[in-house]
Amino acid sequence: MVKVGIIGVGTVGTSVANILKDNADVIRARAGREIVVKSGVVKNLTKDRGLDIIITDNVDDLLNDEEIDIVVELMGGVEEPFEVVKRALQSGKAVVTANKALLAYHRYELQELAKDIPFEFEASVAGGIPIINALRDGLSANHIESIMGIMNGTCNYMMTKMSQEGVAYDAILKESQELGYAEADPTFDVGGFDAAHKLLILASIAYGIDAKPEDILIEGIENVTQEDIAFAKEFGYAIKLLGIAKKDGNEVELRVHAALINQDAMIAKIDGVMNGISVVGDKVGETLYYGAGAGGDATASAVVANIIDIVRGQRSSAMLGFNRPMEGEALSLKALEDINSKYYLRINVNDKAGVLARVTKLFEDNSISIETVLQRPANATSANLLIATHIALEKDIQQMMRDLESLEFVNEKPVMIRIV
Amino acid sequence: MVKVGIIGVGTVGTSVANILKDNADVIRARAGREIVVKSGVVKNLTKDRGLDIIITDNVDDLLNDEEIDIVVELMGGVEEPFEVVKRALQSGKAVVTANKALLAYHRYELQELAKDIPFEFEASVAGGIPIINALRDGLSANHIESIMGIMNGTCNYMMTKMSQEGVAYDAILKESQELGYAEADPTFDVGGFDAAHKLLILASIAYGIDAKPEDILIEGIENVTQEDIAFAKEFGYAIKLLGIAKKDGNEVELRVHAALINQDAMIAKIDGVMNGISVVGDKVGETLYYGAGAGGDATASAVVANIIDIVRGQRSSAMLGFNRPMEGEALSLKALEDINSKYYLRINVNDKAGVLARVTKLFEDNSISIETVLQRPANATSANLLIATHIALEKDIQQMMRDLESLEFVNEKPVMIRIV
Repeated sequence: MVKVGIIGVGTVGTSVANILKDNADVIRARAGREIVVKSGVVKNLTKDRGLDIIITDNVDDLLNDEEIDIVVELMGGVEEPFEVVKRALQSGKAVVTANKALLAYHRYELQELAKDIPFEFEASVAGGIPIINALRDGLSANHIESIMGIMNGTCNYMMTKMSQEGVAYDAILKESQELGYAEADPTFDVGGFDAAHKLLILASIAYGIDAKPEDILIEGIENVTQEDIAFAKEFGYAIKLLGIAKKDGNEVELRVHAALINQDAMIAKIDGVMNGISVVGDKVGETLYYGAGAGGDATASAVVANIIDIVRGQRSSAMLGFNRPMEGEALSLKALEDINSKYYLRINVNDKAGVLARVTKLFEDNSISIETVLQRPANATSANLLIATHIALEKDIQQMMRDLESLEFVNEKPVMIRIV
Repeated sequence: MVKVGIIGVGTVGTSVANILKDNADVIRARAGREIVVKSGVVKNLTKDRGLDIIITDNVDDLLNDEEIDIVVELMGGVEEPFEVVKRALQSGKAVVTANKALLAYHRYELQELAKDIPFEFEASVAGGIPIINALRDGLSANHIESIMGIMNGTCNYMMTKMSQEGVAYDAILKESQELGYAEADPTFDVGGFDAAHKLLILASIAYGIDAKPEDILIEGIENVTQEDIAFAKEFGYAIKLLGIAKKDGNEVELRVHAALINQDAMIAKIDGVMNGISVVGDKVGETLYYGAGAGGDATASAVVANIIDIVRGQRSSAMLGFNRPMEGEALSLKALEDINSKYYLRINVNDKAGVLARVTKLFEDNSISIETVLQRPANATSANLLIATHIALEKDIQQMMRDLESLEFVNEKPVMIRIV
């Protein structure tokens, strides 16, 4: 019998315990052994979780328990779980975590510690979707050309509602908070940080890039308006918050931002709170993985799958975890200003003669070629210029944005959304 | 160094050899060892395949070669590869196959032989999509409630073209043959047999059902017309060839047929030659896997992933292969007549008074409740009745079809498409 300890018995932790009990029949058959949760660590001892396990508020009770073979870390946070996971690994316990923030900052250090001990984290990206499994095993014959995904269900729910029902950003954010999809402080989701943590984990597996969130481009969906959505629809795009990792020679682009994406792409068809990740391999072409990116049972499904893997003795994490750059193919992070993209800009201007000419001249001066221009009245005295460009350099666009902002007839900071 | 022998060096076999060479850098890093193809068995020795391997037309040369650790079987057929794979396993060589027909008939016998030897077959279902990996590993915490998939790219290409371009069945079949998507004798694809082989493999993994193609419902797309597609569009459906495995208590439904499917379902959005498989787990909910279901490189991507798995020493096929029914949960194949579904019928009738009343009375007599009726002129003297039912029993529908056919004003055998 294999004994598991859960640190952090909230929604996901409770689901982990319940799945191991509810589905004990198939799990025993697939793992070859019985797996039971022995104990859990919580902050609040008085709350009844309806579980038949030992509950303690002292993490040492669990870490010092020699009967416990596998520790499931579901604490949240970064430094506190880092210490706990380190101690668990050092005491020879296998660890399964769903903690993407922990991995966004400490994945290489933990992998180093876990050389001879299983350390798994399928649930840290896209909840129940076995995307890490696919990357490490199913696509192992491929050089990965790109990973592009809807990795945050909250943002996707909001973008879907804004698009399908014409609801304004603020209204849909409020609704998402009431539904429990968004936190009281929604920045972590709508600012793109949650998606960035997941992107870093996937990019490490595919490319061995040891970047931290601070090192990469992270933008959110806060500036997307109904005008942008109308423009997108008119020209055959959907707007989604995407995490993108793309290999270009010996460099890898990593970025999270709202993006206009061709509405015929599979990833544009993923609506509501669902997640979906497209992976392009040099041999397999595009594959896509879709499912629930959050929720207790879906996330716990991935945690328990990792526990089963460990019990099967299936993993060898030093080989299967985050890649180290291979000899002769050291990949580095591409500088933000070197990114190439098409861009969409929304520029609010005073509605008077000569403005469009001045703006388009500025594009020309910055070597940026315009593909589409739409001018729409914003109110009695101002208009929105909606402009899509051909492929341009990020540094030129950033310069353009600064130039635009300084013009006397531009009323507010222009909004830019990349087109992928 | 691990040495591989390929039996059947056609499109996929050549791709396997090329991938192991082209991507040797990542493959060595991921497998931990170098993997090379030593030899290949072909029928035609004179054809140049541009490969730097030993070529022979005698399978014994490969099977008796003690240096070869892993045999890749890509011969096609059923009984001949069965003998070859048996011999390979008996001589202690690991086997990777992409041969779905072989597995549709002999998977349990081969698994029995492969108790202590790796035997892998990811490429046998949906080409490059790691769906078997997902079912066996990623979703291992779940009872699988259903598997529903577009498992045949040829049929999906034809259905997509018929829907998007209004092309008639015969014209699009001819085009598919010219493009090489369909064989000269297209029955294996358009008759649903190819999809059925894949469905049986997935159903064995999820449910331990040891059925053969003869035991399950297999229908194709041959009877789908533009009238059916117009009806589907009008009522919010797409028409796809689906493979369906669904658990209902201790029984499992297995069926392959054209189906009307809600156009908002992710699986309805999969167009062209692509494959996609939706798997619903009791804990994870719906997950979906999308990608190229055929083609040399995509299929070889899955073959090579299996080779890497074997070199890693990762699999234990007795535990991870086709499930045996677990104690207390022996699942059996549901009888066809017990299937529940909604149904769509197209009935060509003489266009005269009283016909609709007679037909609808017949539905009533067979305890089948009608949801929608459309009558459309077919030519000067006949009309098509397009009828969608509420949930009904398969045996009642089959009786209805026989009753309808015997009516003097019904001009041809009615066409039935299930609605899922």
